[in-house]
Amino acid sequence: MNMIPTNEIDLVKASSSKINDVDFNNLQFGRIFTDHMLVCNYKDGKWQKPQIMPYQPMTLEPSARVLHYGQAIFEGMKAYKDDDGKIFMFRPDQNFARLNKSATRLAMPEFPKNYFINGLETLITLENEWIKPGKGNSLYLRPFIVATEPAIAASPAEEYSFMIICSPAKAYYTDPVRVLFAEKYSRSADGGVGYAKAAGNYAAQFYPTRLAQEKGFQQIIWTDASSHDYLEEAGTMNIFFRIGNKLITAPNNDRILDGVTRKSIIQIAEDLGIDCEVRRVSVSEIKAAAKDGSLKEVFGAGTAAVVSPISAFSHAEEVFEISGSEDSYASIFKDHLLNIQHNISEDKHGWRHKVC
Amino acid sequence: MNMIPTNEIDLVKASSSKINDVDFNNLQFGRIFTDHMLVCNYKDGKWQKPQIMPYQPMTLEPSARVLHYGQAIFEGMKAYKDDDGKIFMFRPDQNFARLNKSATRLAMPEFPKNYFINGLETLITLENEWIKPGKGNSLYLRPFIVATEPAIAASPAEEYSFMIICSPAKAYYTDPVRVLFAEKYSRSADGGVGYAKAAGNYAAQFYPTRLAQEKGFQQIIWTDASSHDYLEEAGTMNIFFRIGNKLITAPNNDRILDGVTRKSIIQIAEDLGIDCEVRRVSVSEIKAAAKDGSLKEVFGAGTAAVVSPISAFSHAEEVFEISGSEDSYASIFKDHLLNIQHNISEDKHGWRHKVC
Repeated sequence: MNMIPTNEIDLVKASSSKINDVDFNNLQFGRIFTDHMLVCNYKDGKWQKPQIMPYQPMTLEPSARVLHYGQAIFEGMKAYKDDDGKIFMFRPDQNFARLNKSATRLAMPEFPKNYFINGLETLITLENEWIKPGKGNSLYLRPFIVATEPAIAASPAEEYSFMIICSPAKAYYTDPVRVLFAEKYSRSADGGVGYAKAAGNYAAQFYPTRLAQEKGFQQIIWTDASSHDYLEEAGTMNIFFRIGNKLITAPNNDRILDGVTRKSIIQIAEDLGIDCEVRRVSVSEIKAAAKDGSLKEVFGAGTAAVVSPISAFSHAEEVFEISGSEDSYASIFKDHLLNIQHNISEDKHGWRHKVC
Repeated sequence: MNMIPTNEIDLVKASSSKINDVDFNNLQFGRIFTDHMLVCNYKDGKWQKPQIMPYQPMTLEPSARVLHYGQAIFEGMKAYKDDDGKIFMFRPDQNFARLNKSATRLAMPEFPKNYFINGLETLITLENEWIKPGKGNSLYLRPFIVATEPAIAASPAEEYSFMIICSPAKAYYTDPVRVLFAEKYSRSADGGVGYAKAAGNYAAQFYPTRLAQEKGFQQIIWTDASSHDYLEEAGTMNIFFRIGNKLITAPNNDRILDGVTRKSIIQIAEDLGIDCEVRRVSVSEIKAAAKDGSLKEVFGAGTAAVVSPISAFSHAEEVFEISGSEDSYASIFKDHLLNIQHNISEDKHGWRHKVC
């Protein structure tokens, strides 16, 4: 493990731990946080010394730009423990690269790699006890950057906070979900910020998703904003379709998030000899496949959700049930991913990052 | 004035005022705030009692949804003082209606009208001294709502803060600005949140605007995301074009903010017998008019900017200078608006809202 040298980080330990108050068998996603957090402030043109401190409220001026102009980005990652107590992250280099892609698009300063990786490692090591072994258990890691500068001019801030908070997690969406294909609302525009993990991308989905939920569908699969003819992603997950034995997923573009789980599944498919096409997926093609019985599976892929089977979709008031199967690709990919993440299987692509 | 009855609001006055430290002749937009602010929290399914308190930092959990998912909206308004010391707002009912349109789109609870109007009136009255008479001087009012609930699940929050902060202002953009017509980047999608004053709409513009500024253009006029063929708005301003003696501006749609200044100018044009067409405006039409000399003016309209003349635009590497004229529509509309706002001229549409 590459601990940050003590001269590179300030560490103030919590005087006591909250861990004994936590029921690890009944975790709601993202509501319980560990004892510490990492904070690194940007001012005077540079990132200052990172600090690990007891998890605590933050103080913001009411004029902080994040509150007015949404200048905020984040990442979602997990740490996993194997049965020997060793702890790993999964492809943190990918999250790091994407964080800075998001930062650039939101006119924020890039964050340094050593602060990111070493900060995560130091924090995870400190929170070792919060990570439970067993597939499906993890410590969800939430690095994020917000514009803190107190000024309501509509321009990029000159002061930011990078923070990492940690929340013990079980897999998200354990039951198969029913989804709606978007026909009216959109998640992002060509030339917009859809490929970035920009805060505003998420709030924009809440209302259409609530309308979908009122119709009995938990999530929306977003379509292109211009024609609504092509399926893109699900907002917190990328989407895969299995027609016959072929896997299909939409290509990355400036509207679709470059998901780490997505790209890992594409690689695992190649490793397993599963044919995977990365190309535009039309609504009409998926409906036709659902009608003729060749649509075998639809599933979402994302860090929080891991792999999330979709049991039905609706479009133009028609509802299509997807039967699923015992040897589903969704379960094959989920097992492969979890086995790599939990140090159970071979890691041929070097995706595991040992923390301690 | 309709003061909130003392049983409807908690008021804690600042022990001293910062006003003597402020140089009112050199105000940078949005950096100086008055002595008080209004806070109204939403929890347990309802808006709680509003509080006016000394302007101060706020405390947020690091997991507050606004920091991660951009669930934040705002309004921009101004209070004006006439030469007799009477204070007015301008069409606050319009801002109130739009606040709740934004709230609905962002899956937030609607804010009550009496809290909005009476809260503004009480706060403005308290900050009376911060409002200087004279055209162009104003107190900029920033009502906003942010999701405060501490939980990083990607779903609408159940706790919010509505706040109003106030900043003394001179008119924004005093010099004519040079703008770029967007060719690659976009502000919003059909079916998106462009018509809402959603925080994320602003951060998304910072990077493309920075690229424009590096080329010598201060602002971008956004075009439709699908074709980039139609001119929409400027992000902090709506846009008007004058071809010959005809005024043209884009219609409202789900990508374009329904600006209060914009709709007031359309009404003033009607009052003055100026022909104003509200219809799609193509880039090619404006370039052709610039080339044949019929494009007389381009100007932006917004609360912060009031009316902001545009002296040049660029598209496809071509730059077009706009000469402007002494009897410009921009100056006519600006004068009309300021005269109404400052209680100098007749207010035939009942736009002035007397505060005290």
